[in-house]
Amino acid sequence: MALVVMKFGGSSVANRERIQNVAGIICSSAREGNEVVAVVSAQGDTTDELIAKAGEISLKPSKREMDMLLATGEQASAALVAMAVDALGVRSVALTGWQAGFNTNATHGSARIKHLDTERLRAELDRNNVVIVAGFQGVDPAEDITTLGRGGSDTSAVALAAALKAEVCKIYTDVDGVYTADPRKIKKARKLEEISFDEMLEMSQLGAQVLLSRSVELAKKYNVQVEVLSSLTGNPGTIVKEAVNVEGMLIRGVTKDTSFVSISVISVPDRTGIAYKLFSVLGSKGISVDVILQSVERDETRDISFTIAESELERALALLQEHKDSIGFRELTVDKDVAKVSIIGSGMISNAGVASRMFGALSDAGISIRMITTSEIQISVIVDRKEVDRAVEAVHDEFIK
Amino acid sequence: MALVVMKFGGSSVANRERIQNVAGIICSSAREGNEVVAVVSAQGDTTDELIAKAGEISLKPSKREMDMLLATGEQASAALVAMAVDALGVRSVALTGWQAGFNTNATHGSARIKHLDTERLRAELDRNNVVIVAGFQGVDPAEDITTLGRGGSDTSAVALAAALKAEVCKIYTDVDGVYTADPRKIKKARKLEEISFDEMLEMSQLGAQVLLSRSVELAKKYNVQVEVLSSLTGNPGTIVKEAVNVEGMLIRGVTKDTSFVSISVISVPDRTGIAYKLFSVLGSKGISVDVILQSVERDETRDISFTIAESELERALALLQEHKDSIGFRELTVDKDVAKVSIIGSGMISNAGVASRMFGALSDAGISIRMITTSEIQISVIVDRKEVDRAVEAVHDEFIK
Repeated sequence: MALVVMKFGGSSVANRERIQNVAGIICSSAREGNEVVAVVSAQGDTTDELIAKAGEISLKPSKREMDMLLATGEQASAALVAMAVDALGVRSVALTGWQAGFNTNATHGSARIKHLDTERLRAELDRNNVVIVAGFQGVDPAEDITTLGRGGSDTSAVALAAALKAEVCKIYTDVDGVYTADPRKIKKARKLEEISFDEMLEMSQLGAQVLLSRSVELAKKYNVQVEVLSSLTGNPGTIVKEAVNVEGMLIRGVTKDTSFVSISVISVPDRTGIAYKLFSVLGSKGISVDVILQSVERDETRDISFTIAESELERALALLQEHKDSIGFRELTVDKDVAKVSIIGSGMISNAGVASRMFGALSDAGISIRMITTSEIQISVIVDRKEVDRAVEAVHDEFIK
Repeated sequence: MALVVMKFGGSSVANRERIQNVAGIICSSAREGNEVVAVVSAQGDTTDELIAKAGEISLKPSKREMDMLLATGEQASAALVAMAVDALGVRSVALTGWQAGFNTNATHGSARIKHLDTERLRAELDRNNVVIVAGFQGVDPAEDITTLGRGGSDTSAVALAAALKAEVCKIYTDVDGVYTADPRKIKKARKLEEISFDEMLEMSQLGAQVLLSRSVELAKKYNVQVEVLSSLTGNPGTIVKEAVNVEGMLIRGVTKDTSFVSISVISVPDRTGIAYKLFSVLGSKGISVDVILQSVERDETRDISFTIAESELERALALLQEHKDSIGFRELTVDKDVAKVSIIGSGMISNAGVASRMFGALSDAGISIRMITTSEIQISVIVDRKEVDRAVEAVHDEFIK
């Protein structure tokens, strides 16, 4: 008998048929003798609909009330899934975030879990109940309802798996695992049997949508084995864990990211500390800069290019203009026609030829590289946005046969 | 400065415009210097939609999970109303049933309030917040969410008014008060300025939908002055309180009820205790009998007729058939073509002529009376269902000029 935590996303519980399918998965596991805790998201588009409703009423709804509103989505979903499990003859009980012991800080909209009090959960499992938990939510010290932000139900599930020392945390979603590239775009994309926490973390940060970084970080911290799999096919998914068998694969996957833009700051005086000044202006307002490129010096000035999230563009430009005199640049140019292609793999650390093979494959495909950035387990290049899919394919073809 | 509890029903918060209207009412009262606590129901048809959803998933959903599901309706509604109040520049906070201190027993679906812990509520009022409370819900000793059953938000509001010693509990609804008869049917129906708790109780039990008996009983028990009024017109409504000015009105209103049927038990042996046996069979299964008529004895048998709620008909017939031998009747006949017309008024106690005037008015209208039942402040007659509206009109014309 094992303790299994499952998580079902919004599309997995979108309607009656899907809920009954989810109930079937839960009941099979329970009938095999497992203790099952299932975390569920709000049904389908419920969260977006609630946000739209609030937006109709207030341009700037209070975050506290927004959390109270949004938390109803997961609460309803948990109750419905519990009813479906009951209807299949397996005893179950649904719990809200506060009933399940999710104590968070008071940062409404993106609360952090401070403590998970598993007493009630443990008691329900001891009574032979399957426990269905409303994901994404908790309660702060003032007894106000909080939500955990984007990907919050994954976070709830991993946190529960850690606190209950579950054998595995199964994240059911609408894809059947983690792929070497987006399978909708790249025909030869392969599903990975395993991936390490660090590789998954890079994949998440570099644009793979399947698991958000925050849940992976949590899983890594508490060494929770995660499996990403489909609620529809029943196939084995991808296991995310500490150490994985490299199994001869140099790289684990190719990702793309088209959610950023490149800003060039033209003719910055070539003085010590100017680059620091530039980036601290942005950093102090919470704007993260990703890839940075400095041109060679010319007439005692340089151009500095960097990438930031597209959603931060207006704010970044305003900030830079505000500090134009102290930084001393001539002008700003923006390029939205950029995209990032990355390869990820623990194997590349010990293999010096990986970067040159990547650049060679891109060159053979006639794709020019604008900027490059690397870490121990990933190499990213910035290319023209319109060429990104071709670039992913060329790189994928080079490494994954 | 007074403390005012308001309650807004589902139609009063059905959409954005209605919510903003409600927020306007709340803010006006707060700006006049009142401390305001507003109880809200789920928006429009939300509750029915949630019940339908559960019904799709399970033929017999667990009542505990049903409560968890339904409670989301009021929670969402409270959050939205609080946002709308905020948007008008008045500080507010929304509370769920458990946050507002509604401690109930564990009878899911129709829980009773055991204790209202007003500490949090009082603290929010002291912080100059308007408090919006999700009606209809509470929490039981196991920390499970409960609902208070039909009319539950009215009950929440009256209970809050009692606990907070509010000056008045304003029940906003889609009618603008309590009328002498249903104003959609009876043109001459008049709105009452005042009505006593006892009269209101009879009106509720006899078919007036405006306030359910349970809330009126609670208001009477704690002597909470209630005002029933419209959230749309802004007109003064009807005050429900302990002692009212009879103001020359012999009767307070005329109601009709078409939700019951009449069963006749034919040829019951005329033995002592047989009527008791008959009604205890029904009573033991929770079926309440209302008006009873015994025929005169004939061949040592009698016929006994009585009325019960139409929804209980199948169950009642099955029970009686099961006990056919021990009761010893010959056959059962059912008459669905029945309706009850009642007059209510504290004034009639001291006026012997009221009944005869009622019967006279019906007789003049050519309507025959099948059964009669009376209490200190009401007289009811059973008539043919197809004649009920004419009967209400005839009686109303007689008493209310």
